[in-house]
Amino acid sequence: MNDHEAASELATATRVSRRVPVVGMVGAGQLARMTCQAAIGLGIGFRVLAAAPNESAAQICAASVLGDYRSMYDLMAFGGHCDVLTFDHEHVPGPHLNALERAGLKVRPGPDALRFAQDKSAMRERLAGLGIACPRYARVTGLDDVTSFAEGSGWPVVLKAISGGYDGKGVWVCQTPEEAAAVLAHGIDLMVEEHVAFERELAVLVARSPSGQGAAYPVVQTVQRDGICREVLAPAPGLPDDTAVAAERLGLAIAAGIGVTGMLAVELFETPGGLLVNELAMRPHNSGHWTIEGARTSQFEQHLRAVLDLPLGAPVLAARHAVMVNILGGDDPDLYSRLVHVMAADPGVKVHLYGKEVRPGRKVGHVTAVGHDIDDLRDRAARAANYLRHGTEDE
Amino acid sequence: MNDHEAASELATATRVSRRVPVVGMVGAGQLARMTCQAAIGLGIGFRVLAAAPNESAAQICAASVLGDYRSMYDLMAFGGHCDVLTFDHEHVPGPHLNALERAGLKVRPGPDALRFAQDKSAMRERLAGLGIACPRYARVTGLDDVTSFAEGSGWPVVLKAISGGYDGKGVWVCQTPEEAAAVLAHGIDLMVEEHVAFERELAVLVARSPSGQGAAYPVVQTVQRDGICREVLAPAPGLPDDTAVAAERLGLAIAAGIGVTGMLAVELFETPGGLLVNELAMRPHNSGHWTIEGARTSQFEQHLRAVLDLPLGAPVLAARHAVMVNILGGDDPDLYSRLVHVMAADPGVKVHLYGKEVRPGRKVGHVTAVGHDIDDLRDRAARAANYLRHGTEDE
Repeated sequence: MNDHEAASELATATRVSRRVPVVGMVGAGQLARMTCQAAIGLGIGFRVLAAAPNESAAQICAASVLGDYRSMYDLMAFGGHCDVLTFDHEHVPGPHLNALERAGLKVRPGPDALRFAQDKSAMRERLAGLGIACPRYARVTGLDDVTSFAEGSGWPVVLKAISGGYDGKGVWVCQTPEEAAAVLAHGIDLMVEEHVAFERELAVLVARSPSGQGAAYPVVQTVQRDGICREVLAPAPGLPDDTAVAAERLGLAIAAGIGVTGMLAVELFETPGGLLVNELAMRPHNSGHWTIEGARTSQFEQHLRAVLDLPLGAPVLAARHAVMVNILGGDDPDLYSRLVHVMAADPGVKVHLYGKEVRPGRKVGHVTAVGHDIDDLRDRAARAANYLRHGTEDE
Repeated sequence: MNDHEAASELATATRVSRRVPVVGMVGAGQLARMTCQAAIGLGIGFRVLAAAPNESAAQICAASVLGDYRSMYDLMAFGGHCDVLTFDHEHVPGPHLNALERAGLKVRPGPDALRFAQDKSAMRERLAGLGIACPRYARVTGLDDVTSFAEGSGWPVVLKAISGGYDGKGVWVCQTPEEAAAVLAHGIDLMVEEHVAFERELAVLVARSPSGQGAAYPVVQTVQRDGICREVLAPAPGLPDDTAVAAERLGLAIAAGIGVTGMLAVELFETPGGLLVNELAMRPHNSGHWTIEGARTSQFEQHLRAVLDLPLGAPVLAARHAVMVNILGGDDPDLYSRLVHVMAADPGVKVHLYGKEVRPGRKVGHVTAVGHDIDDLRDRAARAANYLRHGTEDE
């Protein structure tokens, strides 16, 4: 028997004789990679459906399966070896999700919830139906819809792809009708939203299990640049208690209202008039990477507990502050040689590398610093991430 | 390409194009499993040499190789795909270690250090040469050696297998010459030591890199029963500062004195006359499992950093106290159904399961509790571990 046959035999043995459940995650990016680490700790089975063998989680997961998340056949074949199916992205087509569920698979989150992560217009309508404050929005079929919306909201407006956007892709801030016309020329389904003059961006992460148990992490501040999350501060500095409580309740209400199982990330705008919901993600989320060192239960373990309908773990802080800074790819792909210097410069920061090919601007890892002095933590995490990006500690 | 071919292709791709090093660990128990989790976070390559596909680390490591650590051929074939070789046990024969090193492989810890973990008599001689206090000891060739040793030390005496013992196996406390004769009848190489009337057992974990950098974790108290570690308290409660400093210095001095690279665990007896060295282990160690949640850098990441000659991480506490309790196997193998109740009873403890077949008394996982109140943490960790063992919270 070679080692690959052995691994295959083992996957079967794990399922049959040990009576531990197997979670299958569709998608093999860094979220699946970090979920795999958590699954190892819990002693459960864990498989990923990867598009390519060099994807972040496929490199390290002992039970990686190659396949296409857009293929009903691949999804069924994958799901047949899993007790629960979950996702590291929201791109599996809705009809496939419905078919998997009809075939008896536990799909968590389920298609009825996931469609609100896939269709931003449906999400806005559902949240409005739940009485939750959002930016003003409208569906767009042509330029007239944009200009008439702008008569009420003023310019600029924000055009958003109804589905498929991430990390700033699929979002356009348009100053003029001409700019809006250029976006409309892409020919994709769009909606328009008011350009919110927010004070800062916050996020609340909650978990919800099929039994209805919920748990909310402390509200964090997220700092974006060019539409990409750069830094997360946990808990959000200076947030009034009543706003923090309101945000946690909001997260739990959305999770219950749309029937999410697993992690739900709610991105929020903090405005003088209160909190507005920006985006939803139904999976572990970049705004929760700090929980690995900074919370009693990481968001990755929490997601697994939730989709397995296990009791949820304590989402409390493990230190006074945690700061997470994303490592973006730079021009030189040799991250490892720079890692040595970062470790020498600061033995107290925690570097996570995703094994991804380095491309400029791509998220290839993150740094977390945990402790008492938030200014010090921000400084140290940023220096480490900057150095890993391009060999200097400056931005 | 099937997923196993893909994994194989990937292992090559990781080595060649990404220029990240590959660490190979000989042995695939829980130490290798938890080291694999740390390797995933660091983004390095990691392989294990496993005796069977259902071993703890072989289940979860994407690059498991089946082979026999006693086979020179298997070790060479395994080492040829690794940049550094290290170990989750000390049983690889010394001549093989020498041959691997002669073949140009980086063996860490090296054979010159590892022999002191393999040969307790050589270890005692070396430590004595370094001026380090140990229990009185003597080599044993027959019963006369034992009785003449006991004339000085008094009865009982402790007989120890020179090599191969673990978890209380290979250690016999003999009250009489008759009991000693029964042990001698086993026909294995033995040494005799005085039976130390210690106040408690402590352990100090240190890391040392090939460049000579050292780092010591806070000294812990270990609680053994029937020769098996049951509980670890970090830091050791009520330990005077000067004793803590002395123990850390002792650990670092031993690591440097015998040229260890990687983690070194030094088990100590605390006696009215000072600290005596009991045992050494040159690898991550049960007395350091608490570091996953309880220290800024886990012992598993630290071991990888050390054997790769990367700068060491901060070994400082991440909370005031951490308590680790081992989960021993009970009569009912269905750990998972009991996990649900433990999670429901206490969302704040962290359970680690190793995926091992449950057998009575076998270490199948551990529980860590981290926080401010050590009595509360001890109580909670013990309740969780007891329940996982046999479905009640009592011992």
